Amino acid sequence: MEKRLLDYNFPGDLKQMNERELDLLSYEIRDFIIEKVSKTGGHFASNLGVVELSIAIHYVFNSPEDKIIWDVGHQSYIHKILSGRADRFDTLRTFHGLSGFPKRAESEHDMYDAGHASTSISVGMGYAVARDLNGDHYDVVPVIGDGAMTGGIAFEALNNAGSKGSKMIVILNDNEMSIDKNNGSLSQHLRKLRASQAYLDFKRQLKKTLKGIPMIGEGIYTSMEHIRNSVKYAIVPGAIFEELGFKYFGPINGHNIHDLIETLTLAKIMDGPVLIHAVTKKGKGYRNAEANPSKFHGVSPFDPLTGKSIHAGTVTYSQIFGDKLVQMAIEDPKIVAISAAMINGTGLCQFQNKFPDRTFDVGIAEQHAVTFAAGLALNGYKPVVAIYSTFLQRSYDQLLVDVCLQKLPVIFMLDRAGNVGNDGETHHGVFDFSYLSHMPGMTVMAPKDSRELEAMMDYAHTLNGPCAIRYPKGQVWNCPDSDNNQIIDGNSELLAEGKDVSLVAIGKMVQIAMEARTKLKSIGYEAEVINARFLKPVDMNTILTSVKKTGNMVTLEDNVIIGGFGSGILSLLASEGVRDLKTLCLGWPDCFIPHGNMEQLFAEYKLDADSVAKRVGEFIEGKA
Amino acid sequence: MEKRLLDYNFPGDLKQMNERELDLLSYEIRDFIIEKVSKTGGHFASNLGVVELSIAIHYVFNSPEDKIIWDVGHQSYIHKILSGRADRFDTLRTFHGLSGFPKRAESEHDMYDAGHASTSISVGMGYAVARDLNGDHYDVVPVIGDGAMTGGIAFEALNNAGSKGSKMIVILNDNEMSIDKNNGSLSQHLRKLRASQAYLDFKRQLKKTLKGIPMIGEGIYTSMEHIRNSVKYAIVPGAIFEELGFKYFGPINGHNIHDLIETLTLAKIMDGPVLIHAVTKKGKGYRNAEANPSKFHGVSPFDPLTGKSIHAGTVTYSQIFGDKLVQMAIEDPKIVAISAAMINGTGLCQFQNKFPDRTFDVGIAEQHAVTFAAGLALNGYKPVVAIYSTFLQRSYDQLLVDVCLQKLPVIFMLDRAGNVGNDGETHHGVFDFSYLSHMPGMTVMAPKDSRELEAMMDYAHTLNGPCAIRYPKGQVWNCPDSDNNQIIDGNSELLAEGKDVSLVAIGKMVQIAMEARTKLKSIGYEAEVINARFLKPVDMNTILTSVKKTGNMVTLEDNVIIGGFGSGILSLLASEGVRDLKTLCLGWPDCFIPHGNMEQLFAEYKLDADSVAKRVGEFIEGKA
Repeated sequence: MEKRLLDYNFPGDLKQMNERELDLLSYEIRDFIIEKVSKTGGHFASNLGVVELSIAIHYVFNSPEDKIIWDVGHQSYIHKILSGRADRFDTLRTFHGLSGFPKRAESEHDMYDAGHASTSISVGMGYAVARDLNGDHYDVVPVIGDGAMTGGIAFEALNNAGSKGSKMIVILNDNEMSIDKNNGSLSQHLRKLRASQAYLDFKRQLKKTLKGIPMIGEGIYTSMEHIRNSVKYAIVPGAIFEELGFKYFGPINGHNIHDLIETLTLAKIMDGPVLIHAVTKKGKGYRNAEANPSKFHGVSPFDPLTGKSIHAGTVTYSQIFGDKLVQMAIEDPKIVAISAAMINGTGLCQFQNKFPDRTFDVGIAEQHAVTFAAGLALNGYKPVVAIYSTFLQRSYDQLLVDVCLQKLPVIFMLDRAGNVGNDGETHHGVFDFSYLSHMPGMTVMAPKDSRELEAMMDYAHTLNGPCAIRYPKGQVWNCPDSDNNQIIDGNSELLAEGKDVSLVAIGKMVQIAMEARTKLKSIGYEAEVINARFLKPVDMNTILTSVKKTGNMVTLEDNVIIGGFGSGILSLLASEGVRDLKTLCLGWPDCFIPHGNMEQLFAEYKLDADSVAKRVGEFIEGKA
Repeated sequence: MEKRLLDYNFPGDLKQMNERELDLLSYEIRDFIIEKVSKTGGHFASNLGVVELSIAIHYVFNSPEDKIIWDVGHQSYIHKILSGRADRFDTLRTFHGLSGFPKRAESEHDMYDAGHASTSISVGMGYAVARDLNGDHYDVVPVIGDGAMTGGIAFEALNNAGSKGSKMIVILNDNEMSIDKNNGSLSQHLRKLRASQAYLDFKRQLKKTLKGIPMIGEGIYTSMEHIRNSVKYAIVPGAIFEELGFKYFGPINGHNIHDLIETLTLAKIMDGPVLIHAVTKKGKGYRNAEANPSKFHGVSPFDPLTGKSIHAGTVTYSQIFGDKLVQMAIEDPKIVAISAAMINGTGLCQFQNKFPDRTFDVGIAEQHAVTFAAGLALNGYKPVVAIYSTFLQRSYDQLLVDVCLQKLPVIFMLDRAGNVGNDGETHHGVFDFSYLSHMPGMTVMAPKDSRELEAMMDYAHTLNGPCAIRYPKGQVWNCPDSDNNQIIDGNSELLAEGKDVSLVAIGKMVQIAMEARTKLKSIGYEAEVINARFLKPVDMNTILTSVKKTGNMVTLEDNVIIGGFGSGILSLLASEGVRDLKTLCLGWPDCFIPHGNMEQLFAEYKLDADSVAKRVGEFIEGKA
């Protein structure tokens, strides 16, 4: 079966298939995805949900001449198969292997390096406007989920594209989910559309109309307009999209290839912006995923028969955070939790179960999440906003202007901070130190281990201003050498003494510094290790004492070097007039880090313990 | 007349006024605003447009128990008068004087320190949810313009608040304008609503209904529902807001105090989220402003009789940019310009007149502006995105993920970079160096003067990757000592030689460095001045040569010090192993800078030429 998929010459061969062959293809692809992703891990349920949609899109449109733009892009696996990349699925999300997202460098069929939600309509409008200026005539087809549609930039783009009027076919892939179940009015609006009689009417009318008319020309256009209007008025006063200037078609069954092909074929001959509302089921065709699409959104390798993960469960920082927050919230009724479509991922499930009225999932809407939190804080609450580091980038302005300016006690929990491995460029949370460090009044911490994360949350809770705690993806560490997890204002922890070099580390890099220390010892160097705890305010007293002793300072951070932890310390040392000091800043270089196994990436970029020991040794010896 | 306003005890006295007195008050307030703002300068047309609305809001609601939240906040002058601050209007926007925006520190009636658009519904939802959790019952009243409504965060908030269902009364102040005329589908939707028969019907029905019913109780509620539904169905398929979960009332005449009071009084007894659509005229009551509301959005002091500015026209960087871009676009048909509701402010008027098809005003939608530009660049165009530095903060994630990751040749023109003076905390563009410097692949420049701005634009146009040019508010400088404005990859300009200290300056601070150099000369020090031109990549060769000669380096930037220009140079010096060097970084400190006259702020924070000369002198002498 796998062989069959590999033997096709896609996307060309697709155009030759008849109805039955297309249906068979969807079975083959689904089996292929289950087989491959159960081995490699990756985004799973979202891809099973768009098998038929992807086939229909590639059947109707001519990629790469027509521009297919996948929003977020984690649902692009089928597209990758249908554009000739099936043979690379064994390397999925590995270093130098197939990316889990569209990548222009990987294929001419990938129009956009996606990763963050809600941008496809803006990109599509750019393509479409450029096409019109050039006098070209191909189609531009953004495919966006109902979750991503709640992001503000998607609305900005609909509002602009709808009035500009350039031809564009937006496909709304409505599966009622982001990673978690969707909330929000738009979601309710879509639910109403799905439930309406229009759904059935549309299909029935479409079939009837199609029988009586020639396949091209004015006639079909008029009929199509008629259908469209019937649908629209059947669901009055729905159709937000119509009011935003899009011609709305739907809802249609997103698992019926033939209905999809018919609708897309008709959409091709429409003028102006069109929105096709396709209803799909996340995890479609794999029972375990249909039953629990959140769990199967992104998966580690699992047994395809049972659906059970192959690796044993590990304790993550997300869990530590979630458990601790429940305890804190029992004590303090003013604690409320806010998540942007990530209740599961950020570890807030238990909190939500216990305190449903104090849990707010605002959808994919990071900007609103932060400013909503500001409003709650203004009215006496203690909001805890849990968002992945990379997605909080969307709220840069709100963090600065809506929270810091007003010195509001909002606690930001930045999960997946630092390098995240397989998701790659768009998902590494390696910029947060740099974008938080210059925000006036923001306290920024990163724990070395799980107990320190809890202690930092207790400390953050005592503050009367904004605070951010960032912690990495994956299994927690428990530092054996530390028994003091009492956090005091801006105080660091001297974890190990030494005379040859001061390793000033923060967050995840404390563990690596400790391991490097052991290795350095074996080659004759005694390293002092400082667990900085605070990016801001940083504990300069302890650092100054240490570096005056050793004369050598190496900073270690799981963040880009520019504008980060080490760079901030260098500035403070300069302002203290410290000059007779050798320094080295270790962190991520000034480029985007690709996808791959996390350990492998640390090794490749010489940030694993072996490399760090080697670099520090050379630095002490004056070679680095 | 002024005296009368000052004699009131607001907001209390307002509640005692009868219809006629309220009308008279609106005249008094309008005269007061014209008299005061024509002297001080400030936001003008937007305030004239909300005189009646502000009176009605304060009449119906009890501030500060009820929470009135002004979106953006430049239209809060009337609110300030009605909450007892008329006596401070002579100090408007001066250092330590009345702020041009709501400020919690200024009055208990200011609920939120606004400044950037589109946040009021998020803040309001925070207040409302906290109120409900506390079991309180006051009203929360965000007032948002139709321009601000196009910002993505406003949609995110509507989507969330509409489904959450907390009671909140959003007032949509629809004047068809942002600073410029609004575009976009939402704007067309509102235009349709305004033009519909519903407008008149609503008023007629309201009056008729009100006559026949008691002022409180179930009856009025039912009638109100009836009216609401009539309005809704009269404008089917309108009402985006209804679909987003808000009960929509309107449109109503925003200059009729009594209609406003009736509607707001009724809205108070509704459950859940309500949106009141009030139609106003920007500049209302002052002929010159009604005729040209863009020009009178924010004003310098002017003659109230003629409307003419008192200060003679000065050439600004915005004009230099606009003129140069026209020239470039004549040569290169692939240049297109994008603005976020700021065609006028950014100097793009002439470009728009000459190239209407190549000009895109996307509305207050900075995120979409950037990603739309990415799409255009992907399809072979050379987009030039002109946005104020402070507002581009909204696009941090899009700059990083949508443009830099894909190395797209988009040129960002950051107007109003650095300190902007009277608009204060929320508007100073002092963070852009810090948020741009860690973006991989981004070239960042700042010109010392107007000719260099032009040269940098020519250089940016040759690049095949992202580039940002930031330049300040106000009158241009023309450096007398420079005759070389040829920009070469990452090259700085040695403007003046000296042996005692290296002043490494960028952008606006080059002028101040040159002036400080003259002053230093008079006290016996010879300063070398380097015009850095590039924040990234910075010209370390020239800097190294200079500092090796002088042994003293002072960096100067119109940006916060943390993560900025000087800090970046310190890191590079450290990685070069340069240690025997005294350094001092001058820039804005780690706090929010208040409003005030720009020159005064530079002096207060010791960044004017006199202070810089003094600080550098002390630094050389080892006192600083």
